[in-house]
Amino acid sequence: MRRLEMSDAFALVLKRSRQAKGLSQELRAEKANLHPTYIGLLERSLRNPSLNVTKALANALGVPLARLIAEAEAAQKGKGR
Amino acid sequence: MRRLEMSDAFALVLKRSRQAKGLSQELRAEKANLHPTYIGLLERSLRNPSLNVTKALANALGVPLARLIAEAEAAQKGKGR
Repeated sequence: MRRLEMSDAFALVLKRSRQAKGLSQELRAEKANLHPTYIGLLERSLRNPSLNVTKALANALGVPLARLIAEAEAAQKGKGR
Repeated sequence: MRRLEMSDAFALVLKRSRQAKGLSQELRAEKANLHPTYIGLLERSLRNPSLNVTKALANALGVPLARLIAEAEAAQKGKGR
């Protein structure tokens, strides 16, 4: 099994947080000023986003980036669960 | 004055944390498996690192990435101070 990279763990958290807020990929993309296709790639762990992109995504969700990162680090330790 | 991007704030925190641990750019680069030149560029805010790179840097410092990000977000709010 492939090791869970930070970008993989972040992808999980990203999708979970977006769904918890009831946001579509499209609306979220608009809020973060990113292309919906790019959001889809991120959520499927097909991109390793830059720090500034992760911050824009956190802003679009209205949460501190540190919180998303802490959740991603917890997911990494728990092997993604 | 230019707005403090997340990558700028992270650069400040990165340099501060490295110096607090008494690590050279070279040693830190080696621990993070990155080139010393790249570390220098990051610390001078000349690169917007990927999420996986920021995680490798946090690991090299032995701290959670979420902590560095929280400090960077605080620095952003405080306009870098």
